[in-house]
Amino acid sequence: MLVLDLIGVAVFAASGASAGVAKRLDLFGVVFVGMVTALGGGVIRDVVIGSTPPLAFTDWEYATTACLTSLAVFWLHPQVDRLRRTMLVLDAAGLGLFSVVGAMKGVDFHVPLVGSIMVGMITGIGGGVIRDVLTKEIPVVLHREIYASASLLGAAVVVTVTHFGIARPVPIIGAILLVFGLRLLSLYRRWSAPTPRVGPTSG
Amino acid sequence: MLVLDLIGVAVFAASGASAGVAKRLDLFGVVFVGMVTALGGGVIRDVVIGSTPPLAFTDWEYATTACLTSLAVFWLHPQVDRLRRTMLVLDAAGLGLFSVVGAMKGVDFHVPLVGSIMVGMITGIGGGVIRDVLTKEIPVVLHREIYASASLLGAAVVVTVTHFGIARPVPIIGAILLVFGLRLLSLYRRWSAPTPRVGPTSG
Amino acid sequence: MLVLDLIGVAVFAASGASAGVAKRLDLFGVVFVGMVTALGGGVIRDVVIGSTPPLAFTDWEYATTACLTSLAVFWLHPQVDRLRRTMLVLDAAGLGLFSVVGAMKGVDFHVPLVGSIMVGMITGIGGGVIRDVLTKEIPVVLHREIYASASLLGAAVVVTVTHFGIARPVPIIGAILLVFGLRLLSLYRRWSAPTPRVGPTSG
Repeated sequence: MLVLDLIGVAVFAASGASAGVAKRLDLFGVVFVGMVTALGGGVIRDVVIGSTPPLAFTDWEYATTACLTSLAVFWLHPQVDRLRRTMLVLDAAGLGLFSVVGAMKGVDFHVPLVGSIMVGMITGIGGGVIRDVLTKEIPVVLHREIYASASLLGAAVVVTVTHFGIARPVPIIGAILLVFGLRLLSLYRRWSAPTPRVGPTSG
Repeated sequence: MLVLDLIGVAVFAASGASAGVAKRLDLFGVVFVGMVTALGGGVIRDVVIGSTPPLAFTDWEYATTACLTSLAVFWLHPQVDRLRRTMLVLDAAGLGLFSVVGAMKGVDFHVPLVGSIMVGMITGIGGGVIRDVLTKEIPVVLHREIYASASLLGAAVVVTVTHFGIARPVPIIGAILLVFGLRLLSLYRRWSAPTPRVGPTSG
Repeated sequence: MLVLDLIGVAVFAASGASAGVAKRLDLFGVVFVGMVTALGGGVIRDVVIGSTPPLAFTDWEYATTACLTSLAVFWLHPQVDRLRRTMLVLDAAGLGLFSVVGAMKGVDFHVPLVGSIMVGMITGIGGGVIRDVLTKEIPVVLHREIYASASLLGAAVVVTVTHFGIARPVPIIGAILLVFGLRLLSLYRRWSAPTPRVGPTSG
């Protein structure tokens, strides 16, 4: 479990650090954006459910993994670029993992149904939103592709199914695979969520 | 009380979702910005005063109201535009309600005088600030009109008056009406807060 | 101690309020950005370590100092400009103080080693990051000079040294002076952290 979690952390750190490199931040900036992207969703989750200090501050493996991954991206970024395809697949896995595990942590802290689903989604997409705000972009999850929707669906499925008393391992693994598959499929098929009809507001 | 609160949530969700539509976010982005605008101020308030998980995560009515309102704006946004005047009036009411009720929640959690006033203002304007950061705008409350000032005044009045032991219903209702009236008056008269004198820094 | 802390608050408030003036925010906006810059790092620190309500909400001296300083900058900003050199020195002192004291507060709340270092750095640079996000800039600490790195180093030194049981006053003062000196030296020598090599990503 911890190993899976750390893979998620590493993937998200790589995505944050790459955004930092693209904005020509310095060494520290790249590592900072990488770490915030990797750990931000989980920190917000833990603060919201009242589990302080957050896991990212109590278990050194998280910060260390995020820091080393970001450093690696800083030094190796042309090579990281060539791994873009692999990174997208890993990122889809990280999204599934964080969304589903985050939602279940909400349930374990007695957050009700709808709240736990929101906690799961925040865990999954929170880091990426902070990454985009720090690098002065409108968060990409707000206007592109099936990303946050996959996170939301996975969180909703796992919370609802376990709510009705079904033993955990199956729905958790199932929901992670659901997010993962949906995200990959949307990348492959270039699916997008609908956008508003053009109207008088858009001028 | 809950009904009043939910009206405030709906109005703020509509303002957030409209901003999302104007930025041509997709369906998910519009709903996300709408929900964060509606619930963000209250979530920060509850995290700051240590009341976790926040109300928006424990009472499903909040998230549901915010979500449905945002969906309605997504589908009906040209019509919403025609309601701009009504929206401004409702928004003024929401501002009064959130600021005053937020400040009193601070008092109930034993936050001292100045802190409770700050809690009230954060509740009132926090969602709008997050909305503007997510859509890449300098928060509008920071450079336009009497908005945050009205929120601050209402929070200050209600906290100070109840501090001296006056029974609650009267100052709460009075402070809400004060924010509401001041905000409407400033819209009608086009009042603004003073801006810095032009000087060597502004070049 | 409180006096030192309030000097740090005042310096950070002045830096935030100056940024607000430069963006031509109104009176309220200038004060708001000033207060958030001065108090934001400490509020995040207290929320993360679970010490709620945060100090900035319970001790009125903090909010009052930040508010009065910001008002002073609003009225006197051309003069503040002439003090730029003094401000940089005071800001370096504030950075040292906040980073080191923040890290030790993490230790006192039983946050482990790596976590406490992160808490210290967040306390030191958090306010400035929020200031830049609110005024629509990429946070300056992410792409310029030795700033966050000095904060990180000071936090790391004080947490590590006190971890091995050395009595507090000496490492605390030493670490504050270390951050202060390193920051001044980097300003004087125009040191910067390394930036990524130009590669295919930067096009």
